[in-house]
Amino acid sequence: MWDAIITLALAEDIGTGDITSSVTVPAGTQARGIILAKSAGVLSGLEAARATFHHVDPTLRFTPRLADGDRLAPGQTIADVSGPARSLLAAERVALNLLQRLSGVATLTAAYVAAVAGTQARIVDTRKTTPGLRLLEKAAVRHGGGFNHRFGLAGGVLIKDNHLAAIGGANRVRRAIQQARAGAPHTLRIEVEVTTLDQAREALDAGADIIMLDNMDLATMRAAVAEIAGRALLEASGGITLEHVRAVAETGVDLISAGALTHSAPALDISLDVSLEG
Amino acid sequence: MWDAIITLALAEDIGTGDITSSVTVPAGTQARGIILAKSAGVLSGLEAARATFHHVDPTLRFTPRLADGDRLAPGQTIADVSGPARSLLAAERVALNLLQRLSGVATLTAAYVAAVAGTQARIVDTRKTTPGLRLLEKAAVRHGGGFNHRFGLAGGVLIKDNHLAAIGGANRVRRAIQQARAGAPHTLRIEVEVTTLDQAREALDAGADIIMLDNMDLATMRAAVAEIAGRALLEASGGITLEHVRAVAETGVDLISAGALTHSAPALDISLDVSLEG
Amino acid sequence: MWDAIITLALAEDIGTGDITSSVTVPAGTQARGIILAKSAGVLSGLEAARATFHHVDPTLRFTPRLADGDRLAPGQTIADVSGPARSLLAAERVALNLLQRLSGVATLTAAYVAAVAGTQARIVDTRKTTPGLRLLEKAAVRHGGGFNHRFGLAGGVLIKDNHLAAIGGANRVRRAIQQARAGAPHTLRIEVEVTTLDQAREALDAGADIIMLDNMDLATMRAAVAEIAGRALLEASGGITLEHVRAVAETGVDLISAGALTHSAPALDISLDVSLEG
Amino acid sequence: MWDAIITLALAEDIGTGDITSSVTVPAGTQARGIILAKSAGVLSGLEAARATFHHVDPTLRFTPRLADGDRLAPGQTIADVSGPARSLLAAERVALNLLQRLSGVATLTAAYVAAVAGTQARIVDTRKTTPGLRLLEKAAVRHGGGFNHRFGLAGGVLIKDNHLAAIGGANRVRRAIQQARAGAPHTLRIEVEVTTLDQAREALDAGADIIMLDNMDLATMRAAVAEIAGRALLEASGGITLEHVRAVAETGVDLISAGALTHSAPALDISLDVSLEG
Amino acid sequence: MWDAIITLALAEDIGTGDITSSVTVPAGTQARGIILAKSAGVLSGLEAARATFHHVDPTLRFTPRLADGDRLAPGQTIADVSGPARSLLAAERVALNLLQRLSGVATLTAAYVAAVAGTQARIVDTRKTTPGLRLLEKAAVRHGGGFNHRFGLAGGVLIKDNHLAAIGGANRVRRAIQQARAGAPHTLRIEVEVTTLDQAREALDAGADIIMLDNMDLATMRAAVAEIAGRALLEASGGITLEHVRAVAETGVDLISAGALTHSAPALDISLDVSLEG
Amino acid sequence: MWDAIITLALAEDIGTGDITSSVTVPAGTQARGIILAKSAGVLSGLEAARATFHHVDPTLRFTPRLADGDRLAPGQTIADVSGPARSLLAAERVALNLLQRLSGVATLTAAYVAAVAGTQARIVDTRKTTPGLRLLEKAAVRHGGGFNHRFGLAGGVLIKDNHLAAIGGANRVRRAIQQARAGAPHTLRIEVEVTTLDQAREALDAGADIIMLDNMDLATMRAAVAEIAGRALLEASGGITLEHVRAVAETGVDLISAGALTHSAPALDISLDVSLEG
Repeated sequence: MWDAIITLALAEDIGTGDITSSVTVPAGTQARGIILAKSAGVLSGLEAARATFHHVDPTLRFTPRLADGDRLAPGQTIADVSGPARSLLAAERVALNLLQRLSGVATLTAAYVAAVAGTQARIVDTRKTTPGLRLLEKAAVRHGGGFNHRFGLAGGVLIKDNHLAAIGGANRVRRAIQQARAGAPHTLRIEVEVTTLDQAREALDAGADIIMLDNMDLATMRAAVAEIAGRALLEASGGITLEHVRAVAETGVDLISAGALTHSAPALDISLDVSLEG
Repeated sequence: MWDAIITLALAEDIGTGDITSSVTVPAGTQARGIILAKSAGVLSGLEAARATFHHVDPTLRFTPRLADGDRLAPGQTIADVSGPARSLLAAERVALNLLQRLSGVATLTAAYVAAVAGTQARIVDTRKTTPGLRLLEKAAVRHGGGFNHRFGLAGGVLIKDNHLAAIGGANRVRRAIQQARAGAPHTLRIEVEVTTLDQAREALDAGADIIMLDNMDLATMRAAVAEIAGRALLEASGGITLEHVRAVAETGVDLISAGALTHSAPALDISLDVSLEG
Repeated sequence: MWDAIITLALAEDIGTGDITSSVTVPAGTQARGIILAKSAGVLSGLEAARATFHHVDPTLRFTPRLADGDRLAPGQTIADVSGPARSLLAAERVALNLLQRLSGVATLTAAYVAAVAGTQARIVDTRKTTPGLRLLEKAAVRHGGGFNHRFGLAGGVLIKDNHLAAIGGANRVRRAIQQARAGAPHTLRIEVEVTTLDQAREALDAGADIIMLDNMDLATMRAAVAEIAGRALLEASGGITLEHVRAVAETGVDLISAGALTHSAPALDISLDVSLEG
Repeated sequence: MWDAIITLALAEDIGTGDITSSVTVPAGTQARGIILAKSAGVLSGLEAARATFHHVDPTLRFTPRLADGDRLAPGQTIADVSGPARSLLAAERVALNLLQRLSGVATLTAAYVAAVAGTQARIVDTRKTTPGLRLLEKAAVRHGGGFNHRFGLAGGVLIKDNHLAAIGGANRVRRAIQQARAGAPHTLRIEVEVTTLDQAREALDAGADIIMLDNMDLATMRAAVAEIAGRALLEASGGITLEHVRAVAETGVDLISAGALTHSAPALDISLDVSLEG
Repeated sequence: MWDAIITLALAEDIGTGDITSSVTVPAGTQARGIILAKSAGVLSGLEAARATFHHVDPTLRFTPRLADGDRLAPGQTIADVSGPARSLLAAERVALNLLQRLSGVATLTAAYVAAVAGTQARIVDTRKTTPGLRLLEKAAVRHGGGFNHRFGLAGGVLIKDNHLAAIGGANRVRRAIQQARAGAPHTLRIEVEVTTLDQAREALDAGADIIMLDNMDLATMRAAVAEIAGRALLEASGGITLEHVRAVAETGVDLISAGALTHSAPALDISLDVSLEG
Repeated sequence: MWDAIITLALAEDIGTGDITSSVTVPAGTQARGIILAKSAGVLSGLEAARATFHHVDPTLRFTPRLADGDRLAPGQTIADVSGPARSLLAAERVALNLLQRLSGVATLTAAYVAAVAGTQARIVDTRKTTPGLRLLEKAAVRHGGGFNHRFGLAGGVLIKDNHLAAIGGANRVRRAIQQARAGAPHTLRIEVEVTTLDQAREALDAGADIIMLDNMDLATMRAAVAEIAGRALLEASGGITLEHVRAVAETGVDLISAGALTHSAPALDISLDVSLEG
C-alpha cells in the first residue's frame, strides 16, 4: 500500500525526465552510491528506499548495511546502491527524502521512549501522520521503540469531543458507548475521549475499554489512574512534549500518544555519495 | 496534480470506513466546524483542505475566512465547514494534517524571509520536499514570501557533485556545461554546483547561467560574489539555518536555498471545533 | 471505496461501447425505467445502483421508491430512473447485477436472523465475500438484520488454525495471545479460534477477548458456554446452515458467523422495464 | 484485465496490513499450504489463485496439481503453495474466495451441460456475471463445458425488449435490424429478442442472424424451430433452470442461455491447510 | 473510455504547472477564446475538446457553433470557450491537438468516401489507430462518412496471415474457420484474410462470413467478386490509396479498409484566439 | 511515464481478449516474429515496442537488430521477437502502431534536418504532439537529428500572443517579461512570441532570453537577426514547411520550430512476419 506514495513522489520529481543526467552523463555509465548518515539517530525507511531505486530501475542493486531500528552514528554507511548512473541519480532525491523523514520520526520516537524508560507507559503514535506516509511512519515509530495506535478510522472505535458534539444531548458519553457496543464489529475495543474525572467515571460505567485523558493536568491524571484502577486502559493525550512526557508517564497512565512524533519530527541528515564503478 | 495525495491520504485514513461515526452519529445529522489557529504563523493549504472535504462529500460547504499567505494569530478562525456531520468527521484529520504541515512550511519560510529583509537575496526552496506534497509545499513557500527553485528534475539543468562524479575525467565542469548547452532544451538555464572559487571561475568561463556555492564559508562566498560580478546568478546552498541565513545574504549572493523549509518545518497547531447545526 | 468495483464492472461490460444502442436507439431519445422486484426478499444495493447510473451519465435521474433493508414483494417498484435512453440501457445490466446480488445477500441474512429470533445470538458475516464487493456485501448483511465481523485483516486480531500452525511449538495458543497483546494496537480485541474445550480454556486463561468455536458439535458448544461463563465472547463458526443455525444459537453462544451469507446467496430476481418518456 | 479485481480484492481485505500475522508469526517463517477440495465439483480459478499469491509476494511458489476443468473429489489436492508464512496467510482468503466462486460456476455449468447431453444445444452464459469477475466467470463456464455468449456490450448486437421499447413505433423489430445492419461493424452478427412466433418471423424476414426466444413455452419454441428451419440461430432464454433445461434443449434450439450459471452458483468448498516448512 | 487519453495528455503537458500563465496572467482574469478553422475540412473532436477544457476547469463554458461531421471553411468559428484565462490557456494546446488530429482523420476519410461515391463499397477503418485514441478516431471516421471495422481484438474473429502461420499444417484456412465456429461466441462473424482465389474458395467452402482480399490486384479482386457471388462479404485491404481506391471499389467488393485514414492523416489547421472578457 | 500510453493502447485493442487467437492458435504454440521495414526512413520506437511485447507477456524475447536513429532500407530487419504465439499476436498491432508512428516522426525530422544542413539553425519540435505520446515523439525528433523545445508547460516560460491578449493594456510585452523574471524559478529562461520588429526590440529591451518570430516573412526575420545581434536567441515559428525551411534557416535564426514534425508525419510502413518456432 505504501507503494503508491513512491510512485507519486517519483512522478512529481522526475516529471518528463531528468534532463541534467540525460545530457551530461553518458548512457551506460555504471556508478556506485553510498548512503551515509551525517548525524546520529535511529534508522527507518530501508524498504522504502529500496523500492524507490527499484521503481526507477529494477537493475539497481540495493544492499543495506544496517537494519531499520539500528542506531546511526555520523559517517556510518547505511546502504550501497550500484548500477546505471542515470537511474541512480534519478532516484537519489526521493529515496533520501524518504529515509531522512522516516529516520527523523524513528529518532524522535526513540527520544520519547528513552524519556519514559522504567515506567509502564507505552509511547504511541496518532493519525497526525504525513499524508500518504501513514504506514511508513507507523513503522518508523515502531523502529524507534514506540507502539502504534489504530492505523486509521477503521481500526478502532474512538469517540472524540467532536463526535460527542455531533451526538448532542444529555448522557452523550454513555449513549455513544452503548451505541458503539451495539453496532461496531465485536473485534474492536471502544475508546472515549474525556476531559474531566466525572466523564472518565461515566465512560467506565458505560463500559469503555479505553479512556483517553485529553489535555488533563498531572494531578487529574493521577486521580484518574487511582479511580479507574485498571478497569480500563488510560491514554494520556494532547500537547505531549519531550520535556514533560516523563512526568505524564509517572502518573501511571498506560499509554501516551504524541502527534509530534510524526507531524513535527525534523529530518535526519542522510546523503548519497556517488563514484564511478569499475 | 496534488489531488492524488489527497485521494491517497483519505484512502489510508478512512480505509473500510469511519466506524466510530457510523455507529454513534445518526445519519442525517448536520454539523458545523470551525477551523481555528492555535498558535501564530502564516496560513497555507486552504485549497488542499477544501479539496479534502469535497472529496469526502461534495455537499460540504467550505468557507475560508482568510487567504493563503495571511498571518495567523492564536484563536483566529481560518475557515468554516458545514454539512453532514459524518462527512465532516471523516475528512477532519486529513484536512488538518494538510493545513498544519503546509502552514508550518509557510511559517518557517516567513521566518527566513524576515531574516534576510533588506538584502537582495531570494529565499528559495529545494527538492527536499515531502513525498507527494511537492506542489503544495512549493506553494506554501510562496505563501511564506519565498521563491521556488525548479519544481523537479525536468524544470532546469542543475549539475551537482554526483553528476560530476559520474562524468569523471578532467575538465568535467566545463564539459558538463558544454554538453548541457548542446543537448538541453534552449528554454532551460544551466546551473552548476561548485565548492571552490576555482570551480566557480571554470563554470563561469564555460557559460554557466547560475553557480551554486555549496557549503562555502562566508569569506569564500564574498570572494565569489566579487569575482563573478553579476555575470552569473549565485546561489548559496548547504546547511543554511535560520541563525546564519542573514550573514549568508549579506555576502551578496542572489539566492539562498534551504532544504529545512520543507523537510524540517514543525506543524503549526490548527484544530477543528464541531457543533450541531440548527 | 466501493466505487472502484462499479468503475471496473462498467469497463468490462461496456468496453469499446454499447454498439446495439448506438445503432438502433436515436441519440437524444429520453426514456424511463422502472426497477421491479420479481420475487420476495429484502432490498439492498440502492446506493450502488444509483452510482452505476451516475457513472454512466450524471444526468440520469434515479429515484428510489424504497429504502435498503425494506421487504420486497413480487411486482413492487424499487426505483425509477429516467433520462437519455442510451445511457439507461448502457447502465442497466451492471446496476441490476449489483442489486440482484446484494438483495440476495440481504435476503439470505434475513432468513438466518429470523431463524435465531428470540435467542441472544448475533448473526455475523465473514471475510468470504465476493472479491471487490466487501463493503457492499457487509452493508447488505446489515440490511438483512445481521452484524459485521471485522472488515478485513486490519480490523481485528483473529488467530486461526493456520496461524497456530505457522507459529508451531508448545503452548502456541497462549504465546500467540500474549504476543498479540504486546504488539497489536490497543484498540483491537484479540480473538482466537479453538476446536476443543481445552483450547478454549487455554485461550481464556491467556487473556483472549473472543473465542471462536470452530466446527464444534452442539454439546461441546454448550459446555464451552458454561465453562467460559461470559468471561469472553463466544463465536460459533464453521458449516453453519440455515437448517441448524437455531440449534447453534440455543447453545448460548454470543455470535454465529456464516460464510454462506455472502459466498452462496442466490441472486434475487429484479428487472428493469423501459418505456419512452414523454 | 482480470488482474484489476485481484488488486481490488487484496486492497479491501489487507487494508493497512494483516495485524494478526505481523504480531504472532515471526518474520522469516517459511510455510507450506495445501489447497484441498472439500466437496465434489469442477475446478476453475487456478490462474486467479496463482496471481493472488504472486501479487502479495512474488517469491511464493504456487504449484497446481490439477488443471482448470478437472473434476474434483472431496479431499483431493488442488495445488501447493509455499514460501514466507506471513505472505501465504495474507493471500489465503482472497485466493480461496476466487477459487470457491469460480469452481462453483464451473460446477453448476457442468450440471447444465450434463443435463442436455446428446442434444445439439449449447449451454451459454449471459452478462449476469459478478461485477469485476466477467472474464474469470466466462472462463469458468468454459471449464464446466459451456460456451460463452458475447463478453460485453461491444461483442455483438443484441436488440432486447428494452431497446425495442426505446425505439418505439411500428415495425420496430424490422427497423432495428435494418439499422443495425447499416451501422454496426460488419464483423458482428445481429441478434434480436422476441416473445412471439410472429416477431420471430419478422426478425427472420428482416435479416436477423440470431433470434432469442424469450420466456417462451416449450410448444412455441418447437414451433419456432420448425418455422425458422435453420435460417437463423435460435437461442432460448429466460428462467432456465436445471430442472427443465433438458426439455428446452429437446425443442431443437441451438443455444440455451442461463443467468443462474454465474449469478446464483453456490461456492464450492475449498480450503487451505498450512504447515511449517522444513 | 476515451477520457483516459485526455487525463494523460493534460498530465504530460501541464506537469507541475503552467508557469507562464501563473506568473504573467493575473488570477481571476476572465477571457474568451474562439476556436477557428484555418483550412477546409470536416470537423471531429468536439466532445474531446469539451472534455479537455472541463478536465482543466469545470467552470469553463464551452459552446460549440458546429457539429461533428460538419464541413469546415477557413475562418469559420467552431466553438467558443470562456472563463478563467489561466484555465483556458492551460487547456488550449491539448484541446487543439485533439481537434486538429481528429478533424484530420475525418477530412481524409471524407476524401476516400467521396472517391467511391456511387459504388456500393463501404470505406472502413482498421486497428492502425493512434495509441490511446482508438474510440475517438473511429468516431472521426464515421464523422467523415466512413464505417467502422471491429473496435479491437474482441469485436470480431479475423484470421490473418500471421494466425495461419502460427496454426501451420495443411488445410489451415479450413481448420481455422471450423475452430472459430466451434469456439467463438455465436455473436461474432468469422473473417479470414486470403491472398489468392484458391484460398478465397477454401474460405467460402469452410463457412467464412467475410473474406479479406489482401493486396490483390484488381483483376483478381474482380474474379473473386464473381466467384463468391454474394455468399460472403468481400473486403479489399492492403495499400489502399486515395488515388486507386475508386478502381478498387469498382471491382464490386463490399468493403475497403484503409489504415491511412488513421495512421497518416495530416492534422487540420485549427487555432484558438483569446481576448479579454468584459 | 510513457508506459501509461502502452497500457492504454493495449487495453483498448485487446479489451476482453483476442478471441481469434484463443480459438484458432493452440495454447503453447511457440512462434517467432520478424519486424521488417517496408520503406526507407529513420527508426524510432524500439523501447516502446519492447515494452508493448513485455506488457502482454514478460516471457516474450525481443531482440533489436538496429538502434533508434538508424537509417532503414526497405526489407531490413528491425527486430526479432519470439515466444508464445498467442502473446505475440496479441501485442503485434500496438507494437507496430507505435513503431510506425514514431519512425514516421523521426523520418520527417531527418528530412527537415537535412534541408538546413550547413546552417547554424536547430530544428526543434513543439507541443503539437500526439496526446499521450509526448515523450516518445520528443525522443523520435532527437532520433531524427532534431532538438527538443520545452517538454511541457512547466519546462520554460513562453509568453505567447494569447497570454499577451489575456494580460491586456499597454507595454504588455515588457510587463509580462518583468513579471516572469520576478516570479518564475530562476532556472527557466524567458521566451516571448513577437510578430513585428518593434515587438522584438521591446522584448530584448525588457530582458527576454529568447524571442520567437511568429509567422514573419523572410525579410523581417533577416532584419530581426541583424538587430538582435546575438543578444537573445531567435526562434522562427509558424507555418514552417519542408519546402521553405532552408530559406528560413538562411536568415540566420538560431532555432526553427515545426509542429508538422509531430502532428502530420505519415506513418512509416513496418510489418511483422510470424513463423512457427522450432
